[in-house]
Amino acid sequence: MKDLSVYREAIESHLSNILKVKEPVQLYEPISYIMYLGGKRLRPVLTLMTCDYFDTPIEKAMNAALAIELFHNFSLIHDDIMDHAPLRRGEETVHEKWDVNTGILSGDAMLILAYRLFEDYDPELFRDLAKLFSKTAIEVCEGQQYDVAFETRDDVSIDEYVKMIAYKTAVLLGAALKMGAMVANASEGSQKSLYDFGCNLGIAFQLQDDYLDAFGNAETFGKQVGGDIIANKKTFLYLKAMEQSAESDRETLQHLFGISPKDPSQKIETVKQIFQETGAAEATQLEIKKYTQMANKDLESLELSEEKKQAFRDFATTLMNRTV
Amino acid sequence: MKDLSVYREAIESHLSNILKVKEPVQLYEPISYIMYLGGKRLRPVLTLMTCDYFDTPIEKAMNAALAIELFHNFSLIHDDIMDHAPLRRGEETVHEKWDVNTGILSGDAMLILAYRLFEDYDPELFRDLAKLFSKTAIEVCEGQQYDVAFETRDDVSIDEYVKMIAYKTAVLLGAALKMGAMVANASEGSQKSLYDFGCNLGIAFQLQDDYLDAFGNAETFGKQVGGDIIANKKTFLYLKAMEQSAESDRETLQHLFGISPKDPSQKIETVKQIFQETGAAEATQLEIKKYTQMANKDLESLELSEEKKQAFRDFATTLMNRTV
Repeated sequence: MKDLSVYREAIESHLSNILKVKEPVQLYEPISYIMYLGGKRLRPVLTLMTCDYFDTPIEKAMNAALAIELFHNFSLIHDDIMDHAPLRRGEETVHEKWDVNTGILSGDAMLILAYRLFEDYDPELFRDLAKLFSKTAIEVCEGQQYDVAFETRDDVSIDEYVKMIAYKTAVLLGAALKMGAMVANASEGSQKSLYDFGCNLGIAFQLQDDYLDAFGNAETFGKQVGGDIIANKKTFLYLKAMEQSAESDRETLQHLFGISPKDPSQKIETVKQIFQETGAAEATQLEIKKYTQMANKDLESLELSEEKKQAFRDFATTLMNRTV
Repeated sequence: MKDLSVYREAIESHLSNILKVKEPVQLYEPISYIMYLGGKRLRPVLTLMTCDYFDTPIEKAMNAALAIELFHNFSLIHDDIMDHAPLRRGEETVHEKWDVNTGILSGDAMLILAYRLFEDYDPELFRDLAKLFSKTAIEVCEGQQYDVAFETRDDVSIDEYVKMIAYKTAVLLGAALKMGAMVANASEGSQKSLYDFGCNLGIAFQLQDDYLDAFGNAETFGKQVGGDIIANKKTFLYLKAMEQSAESDRETLQHLFGISPKDPSQKIETVKQIFQETGAAEATQLEIKKYTQMANKDLESLELSEEKKQAFRDFATTLMNRTV
């Protein structure tokens, strides 16, 4: 079986074909910029890997893989505008480098170009891929909307939160995996297993992101530790702590998540202590475990050799260990 | 043959089916808002009319018609953000009523929902409709980008300008007409004739919009007469005047299109005089006539009865006379 870097290299070499900067340059340049801003090509790698494992040449899945990657980067451009984010992967965001209008319009074009990438598939497959793509894309929009709305709500339930992260990040992983299986004409059962595997893994990954934000190692965690606490972001840890804490802790938490001290170190320490003492930290780890186990269980019914299933498990392990 | 109001009413009654406001409400409410803000349903009416004329029940073209209308309104939301426009059809724009983020995200969702409307067609037709839709949508984005870029360029050629208006507005008319013919399984030749008819009519319409902005009747022209002159917008009239004027007039024009006087009435009068004296006004009228004639000529090869061709000609006449 191939090393994942093989898929990654194939993606990079095909990307240059679809990313020709043409007229009007101001529309297409930002697209190339964001697409070459690095990123691990996680999603398209999964599409190619799945297609390959079902004994189909990865070239057949390339356009679907690139559509997923284009869509992912489209959502980054528009989300960064909405979040007023100055940086993406350590570089200027598109709306910073150009302006908001350019970000909106180039993003729109990327969404359309993503659909165009399905055009070379035969009609049945084209329709099935486009349908899954549209369903996923609208869920990502809904997830983003929930995320924005949660900022100003103080009655968000744990279930609502998990649905938000499922929509905002997990379903696209599921779709990336499923598309590879669709292109390879795998059974409906295997397609569903892979989709569910991707969703559950995606939720586990996002919950772990929440956990590591507070308890991760500053040197290996890619982002600023405590960033969510500084930004008063109601993550799984926060919601669980609110649910499980006594009245006094709840009031302290609510107070701390309403202020933005210049030096946040004391706030971060107090919040982390409450996350620990209320059992929210442990509950989050249990939840991560639950979704990881569900993801692994999804693989059982997959109609692939044990060796190939193991490769998906290894992928999951690597992904989950990336930043501990 | 049916009165166009029959198509319009059918559209309105189907719209309510696809415009259910559901969770998250903040994503879907703005979509209903813009879709019910009035508008003449010009494009979807054309789709149904064409389908009907090729003896196919209009219900079959309904989803394609609504996709076109959704896309058109998506582009209005995003364009209004880019133009900082406070009003649309006399009411608050989406980003004014809610905020920019809501406008971006609800617009994105509308673009995706438009694609979803093709899903019930059989695979071949689905692919053909989605392909035409994507091609058109990307052209509309390119047209919008040219329009934005032209604002800060002073070397825009007449050809570039016509391409810009063709992309930004005319191709969607062409696509609306062609989709009705595609759904009705009309010949390739008839499909092409209708597409070309829509594009040429769209260009004529937009050029007339430029003309009427300066020389229209304040009482019947829907917008403020002189609005383009006040906004220093380089329309066909301006570009033609620049091309045809003597050095002194050119300098006056350039100067006037760089200032924004509090009372613009004197500026408007001087500009209109130059438009007349340089022959730009007459040249614009000739250009409108040229595209209108080309549109009518496109109808000749249409495989429809003389009576039905006449209905398209009547439609064109009504459209072009709307605001004289």
